[in-house]
Amino acid sequence: MMALEFDEDIIVIDAGLLFPEEDMPGVDLGIPDITYLVQNKERVRAILITHGHEDHIGALPFVLPELDVPIYASRLAHGLISVKLRERGLIRNARLNVVEPHSPFRLGCFRIEFFRVCHSIPDAMGIAVTTPIGTVIHTGDFKIDHTPADGHSMDLAAIARLAGDDGALLLCSDSTYAEVKGYTESEQVVGEALDRAIGEAPGRVMIATFASLISRVQQVMDAAVRHNRKVTVVGRSMSNNVKMATNMGYLNAPPDTIVTMNEARRLPHERVIIMATGSQGEPTSALVRIANGEHRDVEVVPGDTVVISASPIPGNEKVVAKTIDNLFRQGANVIYSRIATVHVHGHASQEELKTMLSLVNPRFFVPIHGERRHLVAHAALARSMGMPEENTFVLEDGDVLALTSEEAVVVDKVAAGHVFVDGRTFWHMDSSVFSERRRLAREGVVVVATTIGVSACEVLSDPEIVSYGFVELDESLELFEKSSKMALATLEEMGTEALSLDNARARVRDSISKFLHKETGRRPTVLTVIEYI
Amino acid sequence: MMALEFDEDIIVIDAGLLFPEEDMPGVDLGIPDITYLVQNKERVRAILITHGHEDHIGALPFVLPELDVPIYASRLAHGLISVKLRERGLIRNARLNVVEPHSPFRLGCFRIEFFRVCHSIPDAMGIAVTTPIGTVIHTGDFKIDHTPADGHSMDLAAIARLAGDDGALLLCSDSTYAEVKGYTESEQVVGEALDRAIGEAPGRVMIATFASLISRVQQVMDAAVRHNRKVTVVGRSMSNNVKMATNMGYLNAPPDTIVTMNEARRLPHERVIIMATGSQGEPTSALVRIANGEHRDVEVVPGDTVVISASPIPGNEKVVAKTIDNLFRQGANVIYSRIATVHVHGHASQEELKTMLSLVNPRFFVPIHGERRHLVAHAALARSMGMPEENTFVLEDGDVLALTSEEAVVVDKVAAGHVFVDGRTFWHMDSSVFSERRRLAREGVVVVATTIGVSACEVLSDPEIVSYGFVELDESLELFEKSSKMALATLEEMGTEALSLDNARARVRDSISKFLHKETGRRPTVLTVIEYI
Repeated sequence: MMALEFDEDIIVIDAGLLFPEEDMPGVDLGIPDITYLVQNKERVRAILITHGHEDHIGALPFVLPELDVPIYASRLAHGLISVKLRERGLIRNARLNVVEPHSPFRLGCFRIEFFRVCHSIPDAMGIAVTTPIGTVIHTGDFKIDHTPADGHSMDLAAIARLAGDDGALLLCSDSTYAEVKGYTESEQVVGEALDRAIGEAPGRVMIATFASLISRVQQVMDAAVRHNRKVTVVGRSMSNNVKMATNMGYLNAPPDTIVTMNEARRLPHERVIIMATGSQGEPTSALVRIANGEHRDVEVVPGDTVVISASPIPGNEKVVAKTIDNLFRQGANVIYSRIATVHVHGHASQEELKTMLSLVNPRFFVPIHGERRHLVAHAALARSMGMPEENTFVLEDGDVLALTSEEAVVVDKVAAGHVFVDGRTFWHMDSSVFSERRRLAREGVVVVATTIGVSACEVLSDPEIVSYGFVELDESLELFEKSSKMALATLEEMGTEALSLDNARARVRDSISKFLHKETGRRPTVLTVIEYI
Repeated sequence: MMALEFDEDIIVIDAGLLFPEEDMPGVDLGIPDITYLVQNKERVRAILITHGHEDHIGALPFVLPELDVPIYASRLAHGLISVKLRERGLIRNARLNVVEPHSPFRLGCFRIEFFRVCHSIPDAMGIAVTTPIGTVIHTGDFKIDHTPADGHSMDLAAIARLAGDDGALLLCSDSTYAEVKGYTESEQVVGEALDRAIGEAPGRVMIATFASLISRVQQVMDAAVRHNRKVTVVGRSMSNNVKMATNMGYLNAPPDTIVTMNEARRLPHERVIIMATGSQGEPTSALVRIANGEHRDVEVVPGDTVVISASPIPGNEKVVAKTIDNLFRQGANVIYSRIATVHVHGHASQEELKTMLSLVNPRFFVPIHGERRHLVAHAALARSMGMPEENTFVLEDGDVLALTSEEAVVVDKVAAGHVFVDGRTFWHMDSSVFSERRRLAREGVVVVATTIGVSACEVLSDPEIVSYGFVELDESLELFEKSSKMALATLEEMGTEALSLDNARARVRDSISKFLHKETGRRPTVLTVIEYI
């Protein structure tokens, strides 16, 4: 999410979610901290959406209740946002607008014009925002593909025109693959590789990809028609997206190309393609259940070919690898991005990024999208083309860059960063809950509970020991008997001191922690519960 | 670990450890399940070690107490094993033997001859085992580097001679990079890239690599001498290895090349190289502490160059990326494997694997080392060279392959797989402890504790609620007050039924779980402790 502000007007570009990291256990997702926008909500004119991926639209259900503003998005993104808001009962009050490329409109002092870019979802857009002091070009996620699967290549000349004769004031450009030399390969290459894989497969073909990668589904359907196969789709999100894309006209195939699972079952294997989710090794996805031999409808048989038409998103490498291994174990032949070009990603490499910098010819440059090292690499690329270092800004979330037509300076830092959603609770990333969960995960928990009679200051029963994630049952009996005796002795030793709750808790926790570490070499979290009656 | 068995003789090759996975939280490491060897211990003649990496020697401290047999290893591996056994007080009884390449010896019916291979540690060996029915060639980890940093290239002709005129009976060959086409680049390329990075750096250079990658340290020292810099080593494991390698003659440099941190501090920055651990983003390593601005001796200043001379091991991608990002944030220029050839790995790619297959010309082939997909890719490579499919065996841990000079068949499966070490406890991977820990990590734990007076069947005090990893303090007060009332009401409703411990526990757990889920949308682990007095 980023915001552009001029006098009394603020516009917001994108409202994405963050997939949770391993060090945030139990978190469902992260959303942007919009404190600043809420504080200035009467000035926010709209949210502009570049494309329909979750990391660009996923936070809208959380943002809209706080920020009642119109949303502008391309047709497909509009469809995906509608589904999302309807699920949450937020559609009735939402003010959704469909925008077409090169149909400019005004928001306060800003003139907005969307332009088409290539990316791994149809209808992806960049945005030109003309302000009173110059034009800002925001690329969204993009790559320059002259032969994309959907036939909509980028109109590079139009982008140059939007930037103007003297170049734009500011370029904000996608940095995700700024480390990678050369050009990102065209989707045409993938189409050819898929066609070959399907053509050469002796039996059934299963193909897993991202549910939103509609153009890949189109490539598979094209190959299916050429090789006289039918396509069946398994997995809820893939089925829903294929249905939606077909209805909206983003998918085109002869009417009987797609068949139900029951129909597919009656066909010989060499006439079937199964499309499925699970290219990221998601535990409940169709492909992972197939790989584990746990899918209701599909069982791998010799002669099956599985194509993973995706690369692992950073962090998913191991689960994807495990899925591939298990498919091989089941007897499938597996074709994946490491051994064949059955996937290309959706982001520009260095030569494309340079082309964009050259087309837009900006005075100032802010690399966006990507982690710090990607932004740094993109800034270095701009400098290698002659952009002065002082006109290039590698920003952190919350940094406020103030621009005039002549000058740009980081002037402030506002509340920003991520808020994490767990059930109905929102946490900041430094919440103690996360460090506690990490600790529980490492060593488990041991509870020591006992009751003290206040009048005689005596322990009324043997302290109870309960644990979770610490020992197996057969190991625990003797250990916990000793622990109970240890807790009792500790409290008796304390005498009347044990009547202070804090003291008693701390001493019991200490002695049990030490004892368990001595006995097992481990340090579980010890919780003490002492009741006084 | 693998075992070769003929009549009354068993020899074991390697005894490595497994680095724990994310789904085994809290585990220190995994070791091989040696049940079969312990059951047959009087027949085990020796453990042969191919090289000194942890995944080949790390389990020895756990294996030797169970299996009192001699160990044969190259000189450097011998040194590393000695350190390890000394730390554990196991050196006195260990029977360690240094072997030189091409100095054959006998173990029972087996004739053993080690041969030199190239890998990312000096003194790496393959092993030729001549049995009464033919020769087995075990490559260990290897790559074919004709210009390695330590000057010891492989004697390919010697390997062919060991295999014999008619080829070997069986080849067991490293599959880790069997997915990768072409050749693995020579370490010479890395030497040149490091030399360039050091030559062009305006200030201090910090270089992180694996502590055991002695040849890389040598390359850095060579560059240091050429560019008139001194090298200082930070981090305990790196310092120990450099000292050991220098003493044993594996590292060679003019005597004053290595200096202490204090001496380095008195030099101008452009004369200093700091070598450090942390290339895998290990949280307590020197590099990570430097990246976080938390290192006692080293603080990043503008002009510093950091070289990460390593690739992330699968699973470490995100922590390594975070370390690079933080170094950029501190103001360093970071050079890493994604943007420059400052690292090559130690395993053969497809063309080298084919060369090995061709040299050894085996009748039977077992791809080893690597995950299932790597073994499958390696087997496919062998088939592409004309090896019959039925002579190629992709095995799982525990599979027993029976060979005659004419035939090979998988005849049995013995206990194998991994045992996980946590403190002083050993667990199998299906232990309930792991699923409990994963659950604790997701949602935290809530303890409900109370005391029931048995005589009147009454709850003697308000149930106490304690939690960890579930809520922040300010959220908890009201929630826990309500939970306590809920637990009380549940027990009172039960009447004398509450005198059955199992019933009372289950009912309280149920009602509190439901209540907390309704209030928060989360499902913590609820532990109930009920005492009767």
